[in-house]
Amino acid sequence: MTATLAEGPICPAPLVKIDRVQLGHGSGGKMSAALLRDLFLLHFGNETLSRLADAAVVPVEGGEIAVSTDSFVVNPIEFPGGTIGSLAVHGTLNDLAMMGAIPRYLSSAFILEEGLPFERLDRVVADMALAARKAGVLIVTGDTKVVERGKADGLYVNTTGIGMLDPVLRPRPDAVHPGDVLLVSGPLAQHGMAIMAAREGLAFETEIRSDSACLVPLVDLLRGDLAPAIRAMRDPTRGGLASALNEIAASSGVGVLLDEAQLAIPGPVAAACEVLGLDPLYVANEGMLAAFVAPDRAEEALARLRSHPLGAQASIAGVAVAEHVGLVVLRTRLGSRRVVDMLPGDQLPRIC
Amino acid sequence: MTATLAEGPICPAPLVKIDRVQLGHGSGGKMSAALLRDLFLLHFGNETLSRLADAAVVPVEGGEIAVSTDSFVVNPIEFPGGTIGSLAVHGTLNDLAMMGAIPRYLSSAFILEEGLPFERLDRVVADMALAARKAGVLIVTGDTKVVERGKADGLYVNTTGIGMLDPVLRPRPDAVHPGDVLLVSGPLAQHGMAIMAAREGLAFETEIRSDSACLVPLVDLLRGDLAPAIRAMRDPTRGGLASALNEIAASSGVGVLLDEAQLAIPGPVAAACEVLGLDPLYVANEGMLAAFVAPDRAEEALARLRSHPLGAQASIAGVAVAEHVGLVVLRTRLGSRRVVDMLPGDQLPRIC
Repeated sequence: MTATLAEGPICPAPLVKIDRVQLGHGSGGKMSAALLRDLFLLHFGNETLSRLADAAVVPVEGGEIAVSTDSFVVNPIEFPGGTIGSLAVHGTLNDLAMMGAIPRYLSSAFILEEGLPFERLDRVVADMALAARKAGVLIVTGDTKVVERGKADGLYVNTTGIGMLDPVLRPRPDAVHPGDVLLVSGPLAQHGMAIMAAREGLAFETEIRSDSACLVPLVDLLRGDLAPAIRAMRDPTRGGLASALNEIAASSGVGVLLDEAQLAIPGPVAAACEVLGLDPLYVANEGMLAAFVAPDRAEEALARLRSHPLGAQASIAGVAVAEHVGLVVLRTRLGSRRVVDMLPGDQLPRIC
Repeated sequence: MTATLAEGPICPAPLVKIDRVQLGHGSGGKMSAALLRDLFLLHFGNETLSRLADAAVVPVEGGEIAVSTDSFVVNPIEFPGGTIGSLAVHGTLNDLAMMGAIPRYLSSAFILEEGLPFERLDRVVADMALAARKAGVLIVTGDTKVVERGKADGLYVNTTGIGMLDPVLRPRPDAVHPGDVLLVSGPLAQHGMAIMAAREGLAFETEIRSDSACLVPLVDLLRGDLAPAIRAMRDPTRGGLASALNEIAASSGVGVLLDEAQLAIPGPVAAACEVLGLDPLYVANEGMLAAFVAPDRAEEALARLRSHPLGAQASIAGVAVAEHVGLVVLRTRLGSRRVVDMLPGDQLPRIC
């Protein structure tokens, strides 16, 4: 062995400062290691992740766990009220919460486009770390791939979440009975319209903020003695409230009667929907939940939701009925009724 | 309610057969539901997934679980020896296996490019389902997003895996001692060169097949009484054997002496490396493992690996030493020695 070997190899300092993602950052070599250390670990750092093993080892109680995965491709990756980073945390945690689960761990896998400025990536990752910290979950394992310029759109990220099941709160989309009351926790269509306004450069862009939020604290209010009364829960993301209610109606074999007068739609959101010709019932929400609750406990559930800032505008927005099974019918402000079907395809692509 | 309502809405039949992914397939509406039902559930179908809940509920024993995530962006998505679908199963299961874990569940999240022919998607998903079935793991939850033409490259897929920990087999990258013996389970560089040959349209394209395989059966042979002797394990994917050994050398604070004569490189793979000017030590493998084993059990571990078709060409390829700590040194066939450092960036982008 020569002295040079014992001292370790010499790595030449780069002549230009690297301020953008390069293909080499996805190589599994030194550049990958630097990206991981100087960016991801800096923000996500915790004991489990820092081990950088092939897989994270995490403790769970025995029995059953809940698992949910989502890839996020929202465009733009930064928008009023959030970034793709916090959205990726909220989206997956909310999916777990809608099963009544208590989220504990997240994985995070990035697909980066060559040329993405590190400054943007840093903001997204910092926002993701903050969202996870606020929610009390650990990002325990991750992955980073890089694709050539023009083969992604800035970045995509996948989060997979693991949660512990609540022993009592076990809502199911097929457990709704006629007479169950529909609670909606907040105003409609804010996330989708914030994205659209940002994308289209609409004048009211700055007025509309995404509602992107972690719904776990709201769900926590429904645990315990109220839990058996919570029949079904959904956070109406892609496809909006209309699609979520249609799925529940079909699964449970009930009809849903929805009361337009009880659905809050903020002024600028309504105006943006008007301009773009969109129906707020189909626009994505990322910090709102819809729950069907046994009729005798509905007022109590409503009061609990309203006790939290995220649920301040919660309302009784409808009821499950034995008629028009599988269909959602809207009672309009004018008193007429119309079927709120599922859309075949997109109103708004790449909203989450 | 009118009779029309009770009968359900009428959905007009499309006038042209849809044979490619459209943006609407990522909408969360009827097209999404059809894609899920007619393609993903058809291939992946199991009781848990078919519930189509926000999260999958799966039983686990208490204690600790292993979690691993990987996004796959390999180009092309079909190659000799596999597809991005089977690769996404093998890659994540192998990461779990390298921790000694017993894989049980997978999530699967697709990002599809608008215009992707369903025929290709179907082949990928079928291949993925087959790989999962062979490995005895369930795909329990999933997600599908669609991005515009030119914003992805056919498709990307993320898999996240959950495994149960082996009570005894707990290899760690920092547990290697000087004297521990390095076993390599098979020939080098087959996956990376299969991809490169397919991508570049090289003449030997058809001769080189990816080694993409699930390593769990091989790891299973090392459980039980042998388990305490297995110090560290890695499947050398991106960055190849060189990078994996460098990481172990650094983590464990040992040197690694690698014996070129004991590393198998198939003829066409060596020829392709020659043509493209690539070092097989840095080329990705997807069905090969490297393990450091306590010296007194190394022969036994080697014999067990060789008893399985995946390990038929297993060899003792090196040893951990107290010298040149943190460095991997190759003893060449000619008897000279050279440092095998980690590369800064990529030899081969988008290999997995």
